[in-house]
Amino acid sequence: MRILVLGGDGYLGWPTAMYLSGQGHDVGVLDNAARRQYDHELGTGSLVPIETLQNRVQAWREISGKTIAIYPGDLLDAEFAYATIRGFEPEAIVHFAEQRAAPYSMIDRKHAVYTQTNNVIGTLNVMFAIGEINRDIHLVKLGTMGEYGTPNIDIEEGWLEVTHKGRTDRMLFPKRPGSFYHLSKVHDSHNLEFGCRIWGLRVTDLNQGIVYGQETTETALDERLVTRFDYDAVFGTVLNRFAIQAVLGLPMSVYGGGTQTRAVIDIRDTVECIRLACETPAGAGEFRVFNQATESFSLAEMAKIVANTFPGQVDVDFIDNPRVEVENHHYSFVHTALEGLGLKPHLLSDTLLTSLFGIIEKHQERVDPAALQPSINWRQTSNLPVTRS
Amino acid sequence: MRILVLGGDGYLGWPTAMYLSGQGHDVGVLDNAARRQYDHELGTGSLVPIETLQNRVQAWREISGKTIAIYPGDLLDAEFAYATIRGFEPEAIVHFAEQRAAPYSMIDRKHAVYTQTNNVIGTLNVMFAIGEINRDIHLVKLGTMGEYGTPNIDIEEGWLEVTHKGRTDRMLFPKRPGSFYHLSKVHDSHNLEFGCRIWGLRVTDLNQGIVYGQETTETALDERLVTRFDYDAVFGTVLNRFAIQAVLGLPMSVYGGGTQTRAVIDIRDTVECIRLACETPAGAGEFRVFNQATESFSLAEMAKIVANTFPGQVDVDFIDNPRVEVENHHYSFVHTALEGLGLKPHLLSDTLLTSLFGIIEKHQERVDPAALQPSINWRQTSNLPVTRS
Repeated sequence: MRILVLGGDGYLGWPTAMYLSGQGHDVGVLDNAARRQYDHELGTGSLVPIETLQNRVQAWREISGKTIAIYPGDLLDAEFAYATIRGFEPEAIVHFAEQRAAPYSMIDRKHAVYTQTNNVIGTLNVMFAIGEINRDIHLVKLGTMGEYGTPNIDIEEGWLEVTHKGRTDRMLFPKRPGSFYHLSKVHDSHNLEFGCRIWGLRVTDLNQGIVYGQETTETALDERLVTRFDYDAVFGTVLNRFAIQAVLGLPMSVYGGGTQTRAVIDIRDTVECIRLACETPAGAGEFRVFNQATESFSLAEMAKIVANTFPGQVDVDFIDNPRVEVENHHYSFVHTALEGLGLKPHLLSDTLLTSLFGIIEKHQERVDPAALQPSINWRQTSNLPVTRS
Repeated sequence: MRILVLGGDGYLGWPTAMYLSGQGHDVGVLDNAARRQYDHELGTGSLVPIETLQNRVQAWREISGKTIAIYPGDLLDAEFAYATIRGFEPEAIVHFAEQRAAPYSMIDRKHAVYTQTNNVIGTLNVMFAIGEINRDIHLVKLGTMGEYGTPNIDIEEGWLEVTHKGRTDRMLFPKRPGSFYHLSKVHDSHNLEFGCRIWGLRVTDLNQGIVYGQETTETALDERLVTRFDYDAVFGTVLNRFAIQAVLGLPMSVYGGGTQTRAVIDIRDTVECIRLACETPAGAGEFRVFNQATESFSLAEMAKIVANTFPGQVDVDFIDNPRVEVENHHYSFVHTALEGLGLKPHLLSDTLLTSLFGIIEKHQERVDPAALQPSINWRQTSNLPVTRS
């Protein structure tokens, strides 16, 4: 199958591109290098050194014998997006090409506007390109479990059967997300569902949990193939950050009371979920939603798991919550669709964490400990400059 | 009360500005003249000749003795938006300043992107300005009944109590709108509800029905004070278009089977609803939603009412539906909140229609009949150029 991976140079995009290529698909990668640019802006970087996209693709060819086509450019440039899709002729498009950090979107007005413009308009351009070029192209779009927020009812997979005053309808699950980033994904979902209705588009919206881990079978093949590993408080995901704090002998910073519960997924399951979604396309006109997460833990539970696994002493530091979020809440979500397609989840295990500790130890001299502390407060309209001690 | 009307030069913005001024409020108008520019782009115009904003304000001063401040500029220019709000020091901001035509947003990719960018980012800029300057400013935001789509359950006012698997939550009403324009308003609503949560903003989201009529007490005072009256298939609203077709001796064009039902409101009720919302602000942190509509009719019923009222023969022409929408559906909506605040609705009556016929007759030589025919098809990704025979 010909699969175009938008944002294929990122934390998950790159492992996904290799995985799909390794599974025999013909893969192209479109990326504007925005994620690398955020590093320059924030003065931070991947814990693990990463190669340029060009070197990655070259190394992958040496090792696997397989070719990945590169399309460097920006989805906001509609002509480029159209030309890439016309040129590559994908059967599926996997769309990771969005600004993906909640704290980044909360820095100030400009970052909120950038995030919503980049994500929503980029996705509109992809929708229109598919609508114009070939409506059978299956769009596999990365959303987030954070779109749902923390409702007091169980979270279904995108749709909800609602009975009200004696009448019933299947409705989009009501969402109440917690950042301008998460909101951008909610906007995308609404736009895409409309595209399915008016143009018969085939869309799979993957509401992904917080991803942890850094290695997949493919990234482990050669050090030129590794993916980025973000540890800073803006782009680093929570479990990865806790593991780094443990290795560095720092207390794990838990925001607020730590009872906030989040859905999570192992990076190796992410790439497999994408494959499963691509290989079983949504029907014409179908807006299909999968909850791409396998477990959930409270932040305090995550910290405890890391502490129990780490071979040494680790403390927990409960710090003022920089976010505005409900800390005590119900959390239960359905995640049967991908398992129904064949996903065999990797659950959070000692093995995974132990391998993470090893990766971190190897590169710990690259850590700027100040970057681990949150500097962006949801209550403020402006958090610039992002200063660190 | 100091009230800033964003988009105060438009079809509803201008009558609202005068009405609030006449009721003793201190009114300012911000407008970028985008609505006048769309006329130039589409080669159409208001059936009734309108004055410049400057002449309108001058005439209003002569007639009422009251001053309305003018802030010409664009909400996408954040510095201008901030400076205006700092300068005028409003207690309430009424936000009409969005591209408001579904067909315009469906012309092609550029118009969809323009509509969502203009509306969503403009509103984000207003939110951030309020968040930074004075969080007590009450934002009265125009949404649309079209945000809801046509669910098979009754439409509540913005929120819905959902019981699912034995648990209950008060959730945002699930929305499934029918154009990129309507989607932009759904995006706004989600962004604004978040602003209420994180910054304690006071927001009233008015989901307005399709407005009909052209005269308010104030616009009737002097011909320099009239508001625009759009009859073209892009910006003209359905009842107004039917009335024009009747006067011109043309068949009324009903899209599809005509069983599509829509919520409507008289222009005189619109301005009163805005006053009521402003004078009873939402609480700090409250995202308050009112359904600003008083009745609903199917398109065929609207055509029948016009035909029965018009003193002459009028035919109905059922034409291929250029929109993608469900034609046979349940439609029942709650609209008690504004009536609870004191709204005494003007229901669709012979009197209103008869006065509309008079206005149309006076200006009928200005009509380009070709502009009444729909030229924008929802099924196409591109409808440019908008050609007319």
